[in-house]
Amino acid sequence: MMNQPLSPPHLSSVIPPGIHCALDYAVMAPQFIPGPVFEYIAGGSGQGGTAAANAAAFAGWAVYPRLLRDVAAGHTKVTLSGAELPHPLLLAPVALQKLVHPLGELETARAAEAAGSCMIGSTLSSFSLEEIARSAGPAKWFQLYLQPQRESTLDLVRRAEAAGYDAVVLTLDAVIQVASLRALRAGFRMPDDVVPANLKDYPRPGQRRPDAVQSRVFQGAMRDAPTWGDLEWLLSQTTLPVWIKGVLHPEDARALKARGVAGLVVSNHGGRGLDGAPASLDAIAAVRAAVGPDYPLLLDGGIRSGSDVFKALALGADAVLVGRLQVYALGVAGALGVAHMLKLLLEELEVCMALAGCATLADIHRSSLLRVSESPTPEGSP
Amino acid sequence: MMNQPLSPPHLSSVIPPGIHCALDYAVMAPQFIPGPVFEYIAGGSGQGGTAAANAAAFAGWAVYPRLLRDVAAGHTKVTLSGAELPHPLLLAPVALQKLVHPLGELETARAAEAAGSCMIGSTLSSFSLEEIARSAGPAKWFQLYLQPQRESTLDLVRRAEAAGYDAVVLTLDAVIQVASLRALRAGFRMPDDVVPANLKDYPRPGQRRPDAVQSRVFQGAMRDAPTWGDLEWLLSQTTLPVWIKGVLHPEDARALKARGVAGLVVSNHGGRGLDGAPASLDAIAAVRAAVGPDYPLLLDGGIRSGSDVFKALALGADAVLVGRLQVYALGVAGALGVAHMLKLLLEELEVCMALAGCATLADIHRSSLLRVSESPTPEGSP
Amino acid sequence: MMNQPLSPPHLSSVIPPGIHCALDYAVMAPQFIPGPVFEYIAGGSGQGGTAAANAAAFAGWAVYPRLLRDVAAGHTKVTLSGAELPHPLLLAPVALQKLVHPLGELETARAAEAAGSCMIGSTLSSFSLEEIARSAGPAKWFQLYLQPQRESTLDLVRRAEAAGYDAVVLTLDAVIQVASLRALRAGFRMPDDVVPANLKDYPRPGQRRPDAVQSRVFQGAMRDAPTWGDLEWLLSQTTLPVWIKGVLHPEDARALKARGVAGLVVSNHGGRGLDGAPASLDAIAAVRAAVGPDYPLLLDGGIRSGSDVFKALALGADAVLVGRLQVYALGVAGALGVAHMLKLLLEELEVCMALAGCATLADIHRSSLLRVSESPTPEGSP
Amino acid sequence: MMNQPLSPPHLSSVIPPGIHCALDYAVMAPQFIPGPVFEYIAGGSGQGGTAAANAAAFAGWAVYPRLLRDVAAGHTKVTLSGAELPHPLLLAPVALQKLVHPLGELETARAAEAAGSCMIGSTLSSFSLEEIARSAGPAKWFQLYLQPQRESTLDLVRRAEAAGYDAVVLTLDAVIQVASLRALRAGFRMPDDVVPANLKDYPRPGQRRPDAVQSRVFQGAMRDAPTWGDLEWLLSQTTLPVWIKGVLHPEDARALKARGVAGLVVSNHGGRGLDGAPASLDAIAAVRAAVGPDYPLLLDGGIRSGSDVFKALALGADAVLVGRLQVYALGVAGALGVAHMLKLLLEELEVCMALAGCATLADIHRSSLLRVSESPTPEGSP
Repeated sequence: MMNQPLSPPHLSSVIPPGIHCALDYAVMAPQFIPGPVFEYIAGGSGQGGTAAANAAAFAGWAVYPRLLRDVAAGHTKVTLSGAELPHPLLLAPVALQKLVHPLGELETARAAEAAGSCMIGSTLSSFSLEEIARSAGPAKWFQLYLQPQRESTLDLVRRAEAAGYDAVVLTLDAVIQVASLRALRAGFRMPDDVVPANLKDYPRPGQRRPDAVQSRVFQGAMRDAPTWGDLEWLLSQTTLPVWIKGVLHPEDARALKARGVAGLVVSNHGGRGLDGAPASLDAIAAVRAAVGPDYPLLLDGGIRSGSDVFKALALGADAVLVGRLQVYALGVAGALGVAHMLKLLLEELEVCMALAGCATLADIHRSSLLRVSESPTPEGSP
Repeated sequence: MMNQPLSPPHLSSVIPPGIHCALDYAVMAPQFIPGPVFEYIAGGSGQGGTAAANAAAFAGWAVYPRLLRDVAAGHTKVTLSGAELPHPLLLAPVALQKLVHPLGELETARAAEAAGSCMIGSTLSSFSLEEIARSAGPAKWFQLYLQPQRESTLDLVRRAEAAGYDAVVLTLDAVIQVASLRALRAGFRMPDDVVPANLKDYPRPGQRRPDAVQSRVFQGAMRDAPTWGDLEWLLSQTTLPVWIKGVLHPEDARALKARGVAGLVVSNHGGRGLDGAPASLDAIAAVRAAVGPDYPLLLDGGIRSGSDVFKALALGADAVLVGRLQVYALGVAGALGVAHMLKLLLEELEVCMALAGCATLADIHRSSLLRVSESPTPEGSP
Repeated sequence: MMNQPLSPPHLSSVIPPGIHCALDYAVMAPQFIPGPVFEYIAGGSGQGGTAAANAAAFAGWAVYPRLLRDVAAGHTKVTLSGAELPHPLLLAPVALQKLVHPLGELETARAAEAAGSCMIGSTLSSFSLEEIARSAGPAKWFQLYLQPQRESTLDLVRRAEAAGYDAVVLTLDAVIQVASLRALRAGFRMPDDVVPANLKDYPRPGQRRPDAVQSRVFQGAMRDAPTWGDLEWLLSQTTLPVWIKGVLHPEDARALKARGVAGLVVSNHGGRGLDGAPASLDAIAAVRAAVGPDYPLLLDGGIRSGSDVFKALALGADAVLVGRLQVYALGVAGALGVAHMLKLLLEELEVCMALAGCATLADIHRSSLLRVSESPTPEGSP
Repeated sequence: MMNQPLSPPHLSSVIPPGIHCALDYAVMAPQFIPGPVFEYIAGGSGQGGTAAANAAAFAGWAVYPRLLRDVAAGHTKVTLSGAELPHPLLLAPVALQKLVHPLGELETARAAEAAGSCMIGSTLSSFSLEEIARSAGPAKWFQLYLQPQRESTLDLVRRAEAAGYDAVVLTLDAVIQVASLRALRAGFRMPDDVVPANLKDYPRPGQRRPDAVQSRVFQGAMRDAPTWGDLEWLLSQTTLPVWIKGVLHPEDARALKARGVAGLVVSNHGGRGLDGAPASLDAIAAVRAAVGPDYPLLLDGGIRSGSDVFKALALGADAVLVGRLQVYALGVAGALGVAHMLKLLLEELEVCMALAGCATLADIHRSSLLRVSESPTPEGSP
């Protein structure tokens, strides 16, 4: 991979030649994003096993073309949390986007508006949620991390409500983030001027050191980790729909639905949480089976093409979140890049739907897929 | 891969040394076909996943040798659409063959006659269907794309009838063709003088641009895509048998048989249609199960050797179409190359049949194969 | 691979340093056998798929160590065709061994005697069966190809009887041998002075050319291929036990047993017959199930280590044939090499048996193995 | 791999930069351990197939993250042989540790005490069991090989009892150790001054040579191999709990439990016993099913990370043994390295537990895992 320093910051953006499909933004990214930063973004936690599995899982499924179906009235509209979106491609919450572009989330927000995409702003954004809301289009959700103090959390929620966010997406799968070995080996460290803008006025409680005989994990990092009680408290504090991001196990899905959350995002934090967690695609069918056919369900993790989106929907998702492609496109060509990436991805999805005979997202079913290892052998053996 | 410019056009053809089997034409092709053209031919749509899967699927099956069976009266005859063919190797419709040889389809047609193969001429041939018919042998079918205007389509059918084609093969799996990334990256563009000769007198309707809010796919490319109504219309217009090419899903197969089409070609357009579609071989057994044992069924996609043909037949095909090997052989050695490739492929099939104890194609069954992952373990465990 | 010309012929042989296990003879062979000859030996027919599968199949099984079993009285004796052999390692019939050593089969025969191995001399040996018999030990079988004229076949059988061979092994899986692409590409051709010594006095019928409209395969090579009638004739002509080599399909196994043959060799001719045939190991369990627990059954194909032998026995074989390792060892160090290779292989088998708690071959069962993809998951999911 | 001579012996140890996780000690080891020694340690017996399988097996399982569970009171305590250990990471018995550090097992023992780990001292240690006991912490077990003479064995047991060892771990899976080809090819030989200190005063019976007609394996190495009678004798001689190391087959596990042994170590001797034995992880679930839920069971083989430990526990282990990582860490940084490696491994386990919602080892179940090839496909096909 060729890595070039990012100097001077390119405020005006141009789509480079050679971008033929959404995935090409990943191919191009190392030419536009400094090496250690690229490693930080591309890598997953630890050995990166889950990050790799996320993308690899899609190859296990093939999409059946279907013939002669009239899809001339086709569209990709989807209704989520009561709002109709033109397509099921949401921009995943990604922290600290100044890392790859000086205008960071502001560019991403502009792209979201241009592409009709719902942006999910991160608690850890490098611009404030209010600034992002001003740039974004009508569809925007706010991703929430519970803060050490409930007052801070509540303030974030109130600010999101005031800024016009339509939903809160509570992330629960990154209580501990293990560093990426790729990033460590590349010598990545976060630049001093890239900080979470939303949190600068909140008190940071001093790090409680566990006793010598206690665990840095259980009695340290996990001491204030969110619990079912915290979720109930949050649900009682806001009338915004609350989604949960980071669900993989069907029992968690069932329990969260029972508590009244608005919907779930099947996710392993892009392989940046527990290294060794299942690929999102490998988990979604069981989650869909657990929550029933009508409950809102999104998939996050590994989306690199329109047929990936199709497969996620066929296995149970209502829509998908796009993370790494978003950041790569932002680094390559700013707002224009992100909007272009979304346009390519959408058209890839539409082509896949059209050839699979699906005029709407509701037409995409499990029967649209063939498990690659499922090659049917109806007659006897040997 | 070594690529040499194709200059001057080699009108007299010689089989190069080192061709030991049909597959060797694929091995040799990069030495005879200019790089970008080779990439265009070899590549599948998009990432080329389905194109690769087509060929890889055959490795999942082994062929059982059988002993002491008398095959001295053996032959490879097959009856398709009422005509007896000496062998089950058809030449797949391939567009614009001038790309690899100045006499394009005329050479291919001569090879078909010499090798006793049924040639399926393409609507998009670089020579007219009448010219091709004059060069071809007795067995020739015409591959049809529905044209934007029914008059054009009907004219094509009438011309095919008049020129003596025995059947119409309606292609339905390439309503949209996504460009091959390999071809794009190699800088391929179609030469100006390589054009579909059959269509030059038909009006080309201006490209309808969908509204800004509409989809280029659903309201653009798919607006005039063939529907069940178009198929019924076509069936009412000709007494030639109408085959459908591009079937993968068993429900489509069942429905098409019910409409009265003559037979089906299980195909994913050589991986040039929907990237991510199943390998043809992975789909055929379920299609055969859907249409019953006696309905005509061909397989297209991935055939590179005689044992590939055998496996396709064992899993349900009556005959196969040969696409890329045809074009490679044409580029390597013109008509002589195509005829030689067919001869090698046929002899490979005969050897496979003879060693598998099959005197005729009807002797080839599912029980002739062992799924490679099926190694039987009759006794208990652990 | 390093290839050195074989000059001058090394009549006195020395085991080179660096041979630690039987497989090392395969590792060393390219240093002692000229390149094209090595390619001819190592390669399988066609693409070599079956030859590779033969060896790869063994990795699909693990051997369970067992504890505290008393094996101090252990041995590897086996009784085949009424004769007790000290171990189940037979030397497979390999043609024209002068290719790798000037004294060819005479060296192999001496090694067989030294190592207590049963040698199966080939019809196509480069020394006569009488010369080989004089060098071999008490255990020797004669491998038979049916000759174009029954008189020749009968003469071979009578000569084998007279020379003291204990059994006839009729090979049926190489009616047609497709050339190895590896050998073709390496430019291998058989030296003029390497000829089948046994056949030099028999008339060679002129090659019957099939009519132009006939198949070189069905009406050519297969015209005089052995049939069930030929087998019955042979069985009526000799009182020696007649084994059949080349069985893979359980139905063939059942039918051959019913005709009264003495035993079967599960084999695909070392991948030199039908390219694409199943690995011998993948076929043996179904063959064993077809013929019942007590019928004599050998495995040929892919044996490279003592644990390979163990796995073959656990899946149903009574003994195994060693082909390529035999030739490699002969090329590397003559009779001494073959005897040493057998000694290493036997000790590897004994170690495997001892650690698996098997004092005798009869103790080796299917339950001694774990299918590698069989890892047991007794509790529920997810 | 870069290999540097180990001179001069580094008695003071420093953790090198670049160690981010326990596995990094394996990555770093070739820089600190001389080449042939590293090959000897890293290699398994024979081709090393089982050694590689041990580590590879863990990739077949994913760990489910679980949400909102309160693990603030979490810990990793486990009770084995009546003693509570702070965590389930035991130091596997590894012979002759002077090979990688001049103070060998004394350093390891100090690390065990510092890290609260139970050390299992080897019969073949390069320092005496008494010296090791003086350096070790409160938790120490003694690994026993039965000696040629029962008096020697008994003396070892008495010495272990006197030195304060808490348990005896009888190793049964290495009756014969086949040399590692990697070590042989690297030219490894054991230095003269690296000898088993515990055994220097015991008589070494002259090697009994089997008769010429006998087997070096069955009548040689296996003549005095342990039998069930030896186990019964040992159990009658000591009141210490006796564990058995080297169990893989469920029937052996059942039989050993019935004899009254204290617990089992599922192990294949780190791939240094029977090459071709199953990976420990592939065997443990069936062993757990055989002995029931409450019987003490450890896993040895392939542990390289905290999630590996988690997976072993989820499939049935109560704790694990760490072998190669122990030796690598010892070679890299002495006692400090071993203690640091254990600390990293423990924290990796705690993070995995925390994210998987497991506050204690008892919360780790089979339902915490997803078989990677198990991706659920609840809806119908095709």
